[in-house]
Amino acid sequence: MAVETMDDLFLETLKDIYYAEKQILKALPGMVKKAQTPKLKKMLEVHRGETLGQVERLEQVFELLDEKPRGKKCDAIEGIIKEAKEHMSEIEDEIVRDAGIITSAQAVEHYEICRYGTLVSWAELLGHTKAARLLGQTLKEEKNADALLSGLAESVVNQHAKMREAA
Amino acid sequence: MAVETMDDLFLETLKDIYYAEKQILKALPGMVKKAQTPKLKKMLEVHRGETLGQVERLEQVFELLDEKPRGKKCDAIEGIIKEAKEHMSEIEDEIVRDAGIITSAQAVEHYEICRYGTLVSWAELLGHTKAARLLGQTLKEEKNADALLSGLAESVVNQHAKMREAA
Repeated sequence: MAVETMDDLFLETLKDIYYAEKQILKALPGMVKKAQTPKLKKMLEVHRGETLGQVERLEQVFELLDEKPRGKKCDAIEGIIKEAKEHMSEIEDEIVRDAGIITSAQAVEHYEICRYGTLVSWAELLGHTKAARLLGQTLKEEKNADALLSGLAESVVNQHAKMREAA
Repeated sequence: MAVETMDDLFLETLKDIYYAEKQILKALPGMVKKAQTPKLKKMLEVHRGETLGQVERLEQVFELLDEKPRGKKCDAIEGIIKEAKEHMSEIEDEIVRDAGIITSAQAVEHYEICRYGTLVSWAELLGHTKAARLLGQTLKEEKNADALLSGLAESVVNQHAKMREAA
């Protein structure tokens, strides 16, 4: 698709994040399975539910624009998920692996925060008020998920440090 | 390199962001050249200078850890930069292209904010106080760059909307 107008760029970016959300949905169950810290496992499970809702919201936004929901390959999210998989398969120590899973999950969140931040701003400026509201709900969820992961990262690494001291 | 401890994961993540910064340094001149809005051009130029300082700080952190500065291929940043290049080569309208450049630059910033946020937190918890301070300085710069880009995005898209109304 040729991007000629801001509306084209808006649609292109919607497709990018739609593709990304679908990839995240595929990757999350593996992350839940590998996570050892119970709080992390739970948080990733909850986030999978949220992600399903976020995909639905994107489909509503496509509908508001009279467009069919379609994804566009997003290399950034593929790179982030590839790294998450490497962490999960290569790190043997459970706590270090959890720290790796958290940092990959945060990279995913930040990618989404950035994209949804842009989309909300563009939707408002282009007069897509209802779309802006829907995208804003997702943006809030992603920021919340990132904050929860930051808190959890600290407790996981603290636990690791204490175990190291005790060893 | 096998990641066995939190120190290994810290070093691995340092290598990831070191590689990313070097790629960003390579990509920025092209973005400066293509940007049309004078404020955006200027901002990207200033950020190139900041990025040089950030690379130096990372080299200091490697030195503090008695490690040689080395990068590790980071697919996420390659994906983001690839998208930036697509925006720059494929979008003909100058304002829409600037909006595309800004959103790519923000994706870069968010990737860095996430990585440096993690690195600062890990450095503190692992007792690398001086490294934490250096990485924290960069984190502050990245957050500032992202905020400036957000403001600029709004004025660029507003300008576009006004031109569209006038057309």
